[in-house]
Amino acid sequence: MKNTYILLARCKDKVGVTSLITTLIAKHNANILHLDHFTEYDNSQDENGKLFLRLEFEEVAELKTSLEFTLNQNNIQFELFDSNVKTKVALFVSKEDHAFNEVLLRVQRGELPAEIVCVVSNHETNKHFAESLSIPFYFVPNNKDKHEVETDTLNICSKHEVDLIVLAKYMQILTDYFVSHYPNQIINIHHSFLPSFIGANPYKQAWERGVKLVGATSHYVTSDLDEGPIIEQDVTRINHRYSVQDLRKIGRHIESTVLAQAVEYHVQHKIIVNDGNKTIVFN
Amino acid sequence: MKNTYILLARCKDKVGVTSLITTLIAKHNANILHLDHFTEYDNSQDENGKLFLRLEFEEVAELKTSLEFTLNQNNIQFELFDSNVKTKVALFVSKEDHAFNEVLLRVQRGELPAEIVCVVSNHETNKHFAESLSIPFYFVPNNKDKHEVETDTLNICSKHEVDLIVLAKYMQILTDYFVSHYPNQIINIHHSFLPSFIGANPYKQAWERGVKLVGATSHYVTSDLDEGPIIEQDVTRINHRYSVQDLRKIGRHIESTVLAQAVEYHVQHKIIVNDGNKTIVFN
Amino acid sequence: MKNTYILLARCKDKVGVTSLITTLIAKHNANILHLDHFTEYDNSQDENGKLFLRLEFEEVAELKTSLEFTLNQNNIQFELFDSNVKTKVALFVSKEDHAFNEVLLRVQRGELPAEIVCVVSNHETNKHFAESLSIPFYFVPNNKDKHEVETDTLNICSKHEVDLIVLAKYMQILTDYFVSHYPNQIINIHHSFLPSFIGANPYKQAWERGVKLVGATSHYVTSDLDEGPIIEQDVTRINHRYSVQDLRKIGRHIESTVLAQAVEYHVQHKIIVNDGNKTIVFN
Amino acid sequence: MKNTYILLARCKDKVGVTSLITTLIAKHNANILHLDHFTEYDNSQDENGKLFLRLEFEEVAELKTSLEFTLNQNNIQFELFDSNVKTKVALFVSKEDHAFNEVLLRVQRGELPAEIVCVVSNHETNKHFAESLSIPFYFVPNNKDKHEVETDTLNICSKHEVDLIVLAKYMQILTDYFVSHYPNQIINIHHSFLPSFIGANPYKQAWERGVKLVGATSHYVTSDLDEGPIIEQDVTRINHRYSVQDLRKIGRHIESTVLAQAVEYHVQHKIIVNDGNKTIVFN
Repeated sequence: MKNTYILLARCKDKVGVTSLITTLIAKHNANILHLDHFTEYDNSQDENGKLFLRLEFEEVAELKTSLEFTLNQNNIQFELFDSNVKTKVALFVSKEDHAFNEVLLRVQRGELPAEIVCVVSNHETNKHFAESLSIPFYFVPNNKDKHEVETDTLNICSKHEVDLIVLAKYMQILTDYFVSHYPNQIINIHHSFLPSFIGANPYKQAWERGVKLVGATSHYVTSDLDEGPIIEQDVTRINHRYSVQDLRKIGRHIESTVLAQAVEYHVQHKIIVNDGNKTIVFN
Repeated sequence: MKNTYILLARCKDKVGVTSLITTLIAKHNANILHLDHFTEYDNSQDENGKLFLRLEFEEVAELKTSLEFTLNQNNIQFELFDSNVKTKVALFVSKEDHAFNEVLLRVQRGELPAEIVCVVSNHETNKHFAESLSIPFYFVPNNKDKHEVETDTLNICSKHEVDLIVLAKYMQILTDYFVSHYPNQIINIHHSFLPSFIGANPYKQAWERGVKLVGATSHYVTSDLDEGPIIEQDVTRINHRYSVQDLRKIGRHIESTVLAQAVEYHVQHKIIVNDGNKTIVFN
Repeated sequence: MKNTYILLARCKDKVGVTSLITTLIAKHNANILHLDHFTEYDNSQDENGKLFLRLEFEEVAELKTSLEFTLNQNNIQFELFDSNVKTKVALFVSKEDHAFNEVLLRVQRGELPAEIVCVVSNHETNKHFAESLSIPFYFVPNNKDKHEVETDTLNICSKHEVDLIVLAKYMQILTDYFVSHYPNQIINIHHSFLPSFIGANPYKQAWERGVKLVGATSHYVTSDLDEGPIIEQDVTRINHRYSVQDLRKIGRHIESTVLAQAVEYHVQHKIIVNDGNKTIVFN
Repeated sequence: MKNTYILLARCKDKVGVTSLITTLIAKHNANILHLDHFTEYDNSQDENGKLFLRLEFEEVAELKTSLEFTLNQNNIQFELFDSNVKTKVALFVSKEDHAFNEVLLRVQRGELPAEIVCVVSNHETNKHFAESLSIPFYFVPNNKDKHEVETDTLNICSKHEVDLIVLAKYMQILTDYFVSHYPNQIINIHHSFLPSFIGANPYKQAWERGVKLVGATSHYVTSDLDEGPIIEQDVTRINHRYSVQDLRKIGRHIESTVLAQAVEYHVQHKIIVNDGNKTIVFN
């Protein structure tokens, strides 16, 4: 199989956009492997609003330049990825290892087109996991001014040319200053089925309310805590026999798989953020 | 197989309760088919708090009287059911038929040990469904004072010796006055995965927030709207292609199965309400 | 919103197919609402094999004729549907009503772009359900030669210009002669998670094997019994407390929802059968 | 909270068994935390057949001896566990690490009352994972006679006083000789939703059959390959876009969680094997 490009594009809906792109690809004699075109209605105005596109097609000389030129000329927002270039991921972790190891091991197994270029942590608890796989580990403790800590962290990410930051139970709130450097490039895992049980100790809240399912939510980080665009969610069934401690345990398992799935969608270039508050996931 | 009794019991946890009950049953030479004993910890005090029991055992002459006497003498709260006596159910419905028909048809098929003794509605939309199965249908419109409407409705329930009221999309808020006549005997279906999206139009809220799963919750009705003890919940996966209208459709399907499951647990005598805010479901 | 057409197309994969179609649509100034392009690899040959396409786009005068001409000229197999034309469905049922009522009520509620034009049964058990909704009911008992019964049945379907036959627990094996009249237009519900427990009494088999999940499978009917292309499957969790009878009850619920979902995909024109043994479902 | 004992018991159903046990516990002034009594019908004879019991109760001096004496005297088969004594687990693994790491990390995190006492492998691929956690790793290659390899392996297990062997993708068939040393003490993970797709390459089989869900099954190992008592199963939804390779990847994730769940049930002493072909899991 030849190498492929992946195109993510969005614009105000109009006639001819998909024709324009597919015709250009055909002219370069490149095969399309996947194409997903979705038009979102604007419910308030009862007319088409936005067009979202994902294409995967064969790499052919000069097609990239030609495509970029055409898309820019037509005011179509886009990102174009070479499917053979792995996404460079920084894993941020605190003391708990479950979500961290889930992402780390899936990448190590070659399941995701990604490379873990560094691990950043405010504790040394998970250092040995990184080191056993020869991944640079940075211990950035919270014993300094927050801005200083974030500047150090940004320098680490910059040095490693990070494309994506994964907060695998990092347990630190990032400032708007930090987040602004990585728009839609920071993925967090939240320990509840959002929008339920926002805030601290969601498993105790769930236990007290007597819910029959508990869940986890992975989302892009924005300046609104717990309010970024949701990428993936899942739940699992519980019953009255589960103590708060049992809920924490089962919660760890859902957190791990939900975060890893969200990271997979991102590095497979399957996500477009729609107006900053929700996602299109072409899965 | 012989007839059976089902016992639901609860008390402050202490040594010997299950021994007391099972020994009494053994003395009457009755077999136990199921026994489920659950002790709930009081997290705040780190000591055992409450004991919940469900037993199903063979009917034997004089065992019932003897058991009732012993349980009362030992200050154990209990309910004792003959598994051959069907629960008498009143179905309350408004215009939408989905949850109503799900419960109605399961009962008709003999899947639940229940009998639909009457249907009450503020519209005549679903009259033909009731009538085709020869079930009394009461049209109680909202064109009168609320108290008067509720009094009429209570009279209907009383006349039919109703054990359980099922609000199958009844869309009317019952007053505390009404609810007080049927404590833990009114089951509602709420159109969201509580505690998410409390209030009106949860499917629009879900669409706007971009959640990846939508759900439904069945609960006992208390004076706190949307806050009664949860009996059953479920969710289903959605994606960006689902419009608000699609979410309403898929929501109807989850509402139907979640409500029917909750009713099944109730009429199988598998539920004990724990301090008015959550349920033990022995399933 | 304007009316739309839905195109299902398939051909050997080659450069330019999607460009050809989308450009023609653009020339008629019609908007595309959905487009899903999938290329299936031929694993044995490590090269692209087959291209499958589903498009939904606005109706515009003369576009239909023009599109049909172009697709035929390019040897692309296709079906073109007007999304406002409802699929005419014949429901075949035996004694059990659960799957039958699930499909019937969803259609009645307007959830599916379909119309139940007739009900065919070898028993009169479900006659009243059809009649209460004023749907023609045909009692075709098995007291005659099989060929004669099938000829009668085909005549009924022909008279009602049936597009799709839904076997909602029909419990009769159709001959190749019958099936050949409705290729990929007969949907069956099978009472197990195929390919497990093929044959009679799957719930007893499941109970004896002690599986922890039971399921159901909806598939197109071909001359190979239980081997037609699978459209939809689902499972539900069980445990040791479920008797064979409990499995039958829970099995009915899964059968109902799986069959209704498969019918929904079909009447929404979301399915392409891939070489007679599996399906592409654009959901 | 005090220490507890867990009792698993089974016998032919008769009146008074649960009374006998709970009364003895009450006489020693010990609280019961959980009790689950299940009577299985013998469908063929329409009479009660077997009684299965699980109890968890407070440790009290002399209760253990007294209970063992009574149970033996009454011909009740049982196992009695101290909930503070961790199960000693040997992890067997081949090249693939996913199921191995899932179990290993859950144990390391303290989520399971177990201790990994040794790792046995026919490859050195996963040696570093064991060593980084200071767990003895035994490389037992297949370059010898099978009986010799198994004898070496049994010696390792014996030396470490192993209670449970977990085949975390061990990929070697154990002989009856080996299995007879650990009856109902060897747990395997099978890469399909049994009884579907028995044998090699189940993901290719699943892809070719076009199923809509794929799964995994964890079971005790008996002399019948792929036929041991099922402990846990799960499935996940797939669609036509999944290649065989994608199915293998998603299969690994289900295998990991299903195996870890089965191990959890075992080390929590929640499983009774029912006549060698299925399990009672008190969850």
